[in-house]
Amino acid sequence: MRLWRGGLLATLAGDSGWGLVDDGALLVDEGRLRWVGPAGELPPEATGAEVVELGGALVTPGFVDCHTHLVYGGSRANEFEQRLLGASYADIAKAGGGIRSTVAATRAASEAELLAGATRRARALMREGVTTLEVKSGYGLDAATEARMLRVARQLGGLGIDVRTTYLAAHALPPEFSDADEYIAAVCRWLPELHEQGLVDAVDAFCEHIAFSPAQTARVFDAAQRLGLPVKLHAEQLSDQGGAQLAAGYRALSCDHLEFLSPAGVQALGQAGTVAVLLPGAFYALRETQLPPIAALREAGVPIAIATDHNPGSSPTLSPLLMLNMACVLFRLTPEEALRGLTVNGARALGLHDRGRLVAGQRADFCIWDSAHPRELAACFGHNPLKERVWQGSHQGES
Amino acid sequence: MRLWRGGLLATLAGDSGWGLVDDGALLVDEGRLRWVGPAGELPPEATGAEVVELGGALVTPGFVDCHTHLVYGGSRANEFEQRLLGASYADIAKAGGGIRSTVAATRAASEAELLAGATRRARALMREGVTTLEVKSGYGLDAATEARMLRVARQLGGLGIDVRTTYLAAHALPPEFSDADEYIAAVCRWLPELHEQGLVDAVDAFCEHIAFSPAQTARVFDAAQRLGLPVKLHAEQLSDQGGAQLAAGYRALSCDHLEFLSPAGVQALGQAGTVAVLLPGAFYALRETQLPPIAALREAGVPIAIATDHNPGSSPTLSPLLMLNMACVLFRLTPEEALRGLTVNGARALGLHDRGRLVAGQRADFCIWDSAHPRELAACFGHNPLKERVWQGSHQGES
Ligand SMILES: [Zn+2]
Ligand SMILES: [Zn+2]
Repeated sequence: MRLWRGGLLATLAGDSGWGLVDDGALLVDEGRLRWVGPAGELPPEATGAEVVELGGALVTPGFVDCHTHLVYGGSRANEFEQRLLGASYADIAKAGGGIRSTVAATRAASEAELLAGATRRARALMREGVTTLEVKSGYGLDAATEARMLRVARQLGGLGIDVRTTYLAAHALPPEFSDADEYIAAVCRWLPELHEQGLVDAVDAFCEHIAFSPAQTARVFDAAQRLGLPVKLHAEQLSDQGGAQLAAGYRALSCDHLEFLSPAGVQALGQAGTVAVLLPGAFYALRETQLPPIAALREAGVPIAIATDHNPGSSPTLSPLLMLNMACVLFRLTPEEALRGLTVNGARALGLHDRGRLVAGQRADFCIWDSAHPRELAACFGHNPLKERVWQGSHQGES
Repeated sequence: MRLWRGGLLATLAGDSGWGLVDDGALLVDEGRLRWVGPAGELPPEATGAEVVELGGALVTPGFVDCHTHLVYGGSRANEFEQRLLGASYADIAKAGGGIRSTVAATRAASEAELLAGATRRARALMREGVTTLEVKSGYGLDAATEARMLRVARQLGGLGIDVRTTYLAAHALPPEFSDADEYIAAVCRWLPELHEQGLVDAVDAFCEHIAFSPAQTARVFDAAQRLGLPVKLHAEQLSDQGGAQLAAGYRALSCDHLEFLSPAGVQALGQAGTVAVLLPGAFYALRETQLPPIAALREAGVPIAIATDHNPGSSPTLSPLLMLNMACVLFRLTPEEALRGLTVNGARALGLHDRGRLVAGQRADFCIWDSAHPRELAACFGHNPLKERVWQGSHQGES
C-alpha cells in the first residue's frame, strides 16, 4: 500500500462542486483508491503504508481524453499555410488535400511508422496528465489500414496508459468508392472480424451532409448492435442532421461536437443518458461561431465531456489543459464543468465508471500539479504545471 | 568553435521567405554565428570545430518575447472563475479585483517571492525556445515596488536568457492617488533614479480611456527622452486614442496591441519605423472581435512582432508557440510572418538588431525542433517539439 498525503484534493465527489479536501490523503492498494479523505482522519489500514508527501500540491483525477484521432500518417501543416496564403478549401481539395491527403499518407505508412508517430503524440498527452485515451480509426477506409490503425492504437497501451479503441471507418468516403451506400456495406462487413480480433471497443460514424446520412449511420449502428458494441457519433458539427436523436435511440455512449444540436436533440440525449462531448480545439481552429447549446444541455442534465479531438486537420493539439481553458473561454463552461468534462464525464463518454473521481473504489489514476487551486488549471493557457502523473497507483515512468 | 550540421535551417535571411537551408550548418564562435550555410560548402575555418549532428532537425532563431508582465504577486484565477459563474467586471472591481488585486499582491510580496514566481515562468518560456525576454514593471505603482519588480526582472538574466526591462509605472492609477496628473508627475520623478541604477532599458505607458491620456503619455515620454531612453506604448487596444501617432513622434520602438489602430496611425508607424506588436493571447482571452489592421500594416511596410503579453489577468499564457498559432488562426498572419514576429521583429521591437535571424554576425541564439518544417510550429497548437535551446552558443543548461 502507498499513501499520498498533504495535498489539496479536487475529488469531484458528488454531482457538483470541486469536492475539495484540504491537507488530504489518498491510500492506494493494487492500483485502486482504498481510502480518500483528510490526512488527519486516516483509517487504521493506512498504518505501514509507504508514504509520499504531496507538500501542498494539488491532486486531481487523471485526465480522460475521450475523443482523438491519434493514429495517422503525414502532416497537414502545408494546407494550414496554403489557406493563410489565400488558397480556398476548394483549391486545397482539388490539389488532393484535406482528409484525402491523410488517408493517402496513412495507407502508405507502415505499422511501425504509424506507431512511432502515435507514440510521440500519446507521450505528449501523458505529459499533460492523460491516463485514459480513446483513439479512433478512420484514416484507412479500407479493411487492412483500419485494422492497422486499431492495432497501433492497442499497442499504445504499453506506454502506461489505458487505451479505448473506436472503429470509425464511416468517417469519409474513400476514393475507390463512388456510392456511399456500397461503402457503408463494406464498413459493416469489415467490423465483425476486427471485433473478433479484440480491436474494437466502440463504433463511431460521421453523420453530416459532407459525410454520411442518418440512414447510413443507422446501418453502421445496427452492425455494432449485432455484436453488442456501444456506439458514439460525430453529430451536428456543421448542420443539424438529427444525429443526436438517432444516436440516443441506440443508447449511444456519446454524441460529439454538437454545435448545431437542436432542442429536440438535447432532450433525446438527456433521456438516453448520452454524454455530450464538446471539442473546443476544432471549434477554435475552424473559427466556428455557432456555439453548442450549453445552457440547454445543463438544463436537461446532459453530462458534458471535453476532449482534444486531436487530428492533423482541424484540431492538431496535444494539450488537454488548453482544452480546459478553451472550454471556458470559448464555450463559457465553468472551470469545474471543464475539469469534470476531462475526467468523470470523459470516462462516462467511454462507458467507464471506475475512474474520473478521487473516491474509494475508483482506479488510482491521478495527477499532481504545481498549482494552488484546480481553477488555475483552466484559467491559464499554454502552461503545464504537472508534477507527476500516477497511473494505476504507479508513478509515471515506473510501470 | 562549435559546428552544428545536418539540419533544416529557417534562417529568415532577407526581408521575406523562410530562408530555408536544407542540410545546413551553423558555425559558432564566442557566442556568435560565424558562418551559416549548406553543410556541403563549409568554410576552411570550420576544420577542427567540435561537431554537433542535427540529424535533420529544424533550426530557427531563438524566440524573442518582446512584451511580458512576468513579475507579479498573486493569481487572478479566482476572477476568471467568478466571471464564468456570472459576475460582471463591475462586481469584480467592487470586490477589489482586476489590476488592483495584482498591485496589492505585488506590493505585499518580497523580492524573493517575486523572483521565485518569475523564475518559474521564465523557465517555462525558455522551455519553448525563448532566448530574449522583455519584462515590464507596472504592478508596483510606487517607487519601491516598481524598483523591486525591475530588480527581479534583471535577476532573471542569471537563468541563461537575455532580459530587457521596461518601466511601466504609467500602467494604472494606484489607489493612493486620485489625480492622474499628480501620479504622472510621480512616475516621471521616479524614473531618473531607477535609470541611474541601471534598471531601465525602455519606458512604456498605457494610453487608453481607462488608463492615461495622450497628454499624460507625452509627459512620460518626455521624461524618458531627457534620459535618452527609448519608448514603447500600449496603444489602441480598446479604442483609438491616436497613441500610435504620438508614439511615432517619439520614434517609439514599438506600439503594442493596436486592435483599434487607425489608417493615420498605420502611416505614422510606417514612417517612424516603429514595430507593431500584436498580442493574440489577450485578444483571445478577452474575446475581442476587432482585429488589428493587418492588411494596412503590411501595405505600409510596418514590421509586425508578436508576443505572449504574459500577465495574470488578460493573458496568463507561457507559450510563445501558442502565440504563433493564434497569430495565424485569429489574426490571419502567415506562419512565416508569425515566426518573424517572434524572432527578428520581436528583437527589433526591443531595439535589438543583433539577433532574430540565422546569419553570420548575429548572436548564436537558436532553437532545435523535432519538426519537419517551420510552418508546423504554427500549424499545431498546445504542443512543444523543442529539442534544444541554444543561447549564446551554449546548449541549454550548460551556462
Ligand atoms: Zn473527431
Ligand atoms: Zn501589456
